[in-house]
Amino acid sequence: MAQNKQLLLQKRPVGLPDASTWKLIKSEISQPEDGEVLIQCEYISLDPAMRGWLNDTRSYIPPVKINEVMRAGGVGKVIASNNPIFKVGDYVYGQTGVQQYVLTDGKGYHKIDPTIAPLPMYLGTLGMPGMTAYFGILEVGELKEGDTVLVSGAAGAVGSVVGQIAKIKNCKVIGIAGGAEKCKYLVDKLGFDGAIDYKDDDIKAKIKEYFPKGIDVYFDNVGGEILDAALGRLAMHARIVICGAISQYNNTTAVKGPANYLSLLVSRASMKGMVVFDYAKDYGKAAQQMGQWIKQGKLKSKEDVYEGIENFHETFLRLFSGEKMGKLVLKVNED
Amino acid sequence: MAQNKQLLLQKRPVGLPDASTWKLIKSEISQPEDGEVLIQCEYISLDPAMRGWLNDTRSYIPPVKINEVMRAGGVGKVIASNNPIFKVGDYVYGQTGVQQYVLTDGKGYHKIDPTIAPLPMYLGTLGMPGMTAYFGILEVGELKEGDTVLVSGAAGAVGSVVGQIAKIKNCKVIGIAGGAEKCKYLVDKLGFDGAIDYKDDDIKAKIKEYFPKGIDVYFDNVGGEILDAALGRLAMHARIVICGAISQYNNTTAVKGPANYLSLLVSRASMKGMVVFDYAKDYGKAAQQMGQWIKQGKLKSKEDVYEGIENFHETFLRLFSGEKMGKLVLKVNED
Repeated sequence: MAQNKQLLLQKRPVGLPDASTWKLIKSEISQPEDGEVLIQCEYISLDPAMRGWLNDTRSYIPPVKINEVMRAGGVGKVIASNNPIFKVGDYVYGQTGVQQYVLTDGKGYHKIDPTIAPLPMYLGTLGMPGMTAYFGILEVGELKEGDTVLVSGAAGAVGSVVGQIAKIKNCKVIGIAGGAEKCKYLVDKLGFDGAIDYKDDDIKAKIKEYFPKGIDVYFDNVGGEILDAALGRLAMHARIVICGAISQYNNTTAVKGPANYLSLLVSRASMKGMVVFDYAKDYGKAAQQMGQWIKQGKLKSKEDVYEGIENFHETFLRLFSGEKMGKLVLKVNED
Repeated sequence: MAQNKQLLLQKRPVGLPDASTWKLIKSEISQPEDGEVLIQCEYISLDPAMRGWLNDTRSYIPPVKINEVMRAGGVGKVIASNNPIFKVGDYVYGQTGVQQYVLTDGKGYHKIDPTIAPLPMYLGTLGMPGMTAYFGILEVGELKEGDTVLVSGAAGAVGSVVGQIAKIKNCKVIGIAGGAEKCKYLVDKLGFDGAIDYKDDDIKAKIKEYFPKGIDVYFDNVGGEILDAALGRLAMHARIVICGAISQYNNTTAVKGPANYLSLLVSRASMKGMVVFDYAKDYGKAAQQMGQWIKQGKLKSKEDVYEGIENFHETFLRLFSGEKMGKLVLKVNED
């Protein structure tokens, strides 16, 4: 059997990670002992939240430790098992980490069916990003039919699903994304009512144009100037869902707080944070609904798949440069 | 009959208002025509929100116009009436503006009883600040028995009532105020569990000490650094009530946004704005409850009364210098 390749956190980055943040090592693969299962990892999920896990600060999850395998969700195939729940040939999802093989007691893993959807989709629309979108817009955002909805990071794994769910609920949806190609994709392929190119458009002016009566729900993946622009255009009783702040994750200076936060007062609005894990007990129900929408052609899923665990670092940076389309996934094992 | 003295907005201030912001004029007093009522104003309410009304920006209420009488809540006595609802000798509350006499059609005015509580209390605990505190902490803050509560501007008209209501609801309450005298007042007279002197204490360290398990409800009257310190110490599912931002009202630069707002995500917390007018239909119910608490000695009301419409400007500045204790009120007519 081949050796395992594992990507460790070598050094906590300041600002944007560089190649020295990580270290790729080779190690032996052990066979499963009683209760254990050996998984060959196929695809690893790359998400903006991973940047936060590198910081040694209090958050919703402990930081990754130095010399620990980098944390990541992944899908793979059971190749040896001493655990009655999993048998050889099963496909599973879990926190595999960035490595080619993982030996685990199976806790936190669940089976997935590659005949229903391609494996990478279980990392995107049918995985954490999809769940985040589903509970974020429907529960935290308290979406109502006919709401006007703005979503940032709209071409990403979470934002693209948020916008499509809002369209399914008969809302007016505008997405913010970087570049003409992504904006065209949002409108032409995903059915958004409009798109704002943050690299080229006057964001404030465009928001004003698209929301003459204000924004009912703003789903924020990016923070920074865009959050402030949205705050400046809230409808009464608007809801802002704070899902992330990609624009701030690699800051070497303090996070930029939203200077327009007093709009919350003027508009009797709320700004609410969310972490998807809180909805774990309802993942099944949500995945079923999402699967149905996909089958009906109402919900489109797009994965951007790169190859090779050696290319983890370059691929990871695409999250922040925006050079990707849809859910960013890394294939870490050859077929 | 005497002439009327009226305080007009002469010029929009940049930063802290100076004496040239206002102009005191004398004018004739007209007798009420059909449906009108003439009120002799006794006490005028001075509130931090008035600073916002001077800015020519979109807000929850239109700005005061140049050469218009400065907007203010007030209490006074009906001295002539051609309106069947009000008779001579009635005491009333309404948006009198900063002047000694007001001629009005009576819309937005309601009668008050000076034998139940002294007139200035109808501008504080039994007026808008009291209503703001009541609905802000109970409805917007969704206060629950046993919550840990932090309130800023705690010795002010709103904050002091917020803290006392939270004590009535068996919560642990810590107030933030400026100066040892105010802090002592919060603990010794109002029964707060502790106080933080923002002029002298290490605010962050004190908050950590008082809230080992985090803050359940933060009632924010001040914004700025204190809001950030509170955000840094939230309990899970915490609620932040945005009532005002005294520290930012006189800014000549941009408002300082809360850099720690991503704590909302980590703590699954919410930050919600409020404007008291939204609760107008329930003022009666709230005033009755507050009156009962006052009678039972559970709720103490403190008014800081200054005299003379000529002293409006100097008195107004006390809102921002903190040189006042409790509800700031100006007596504008002699007995």
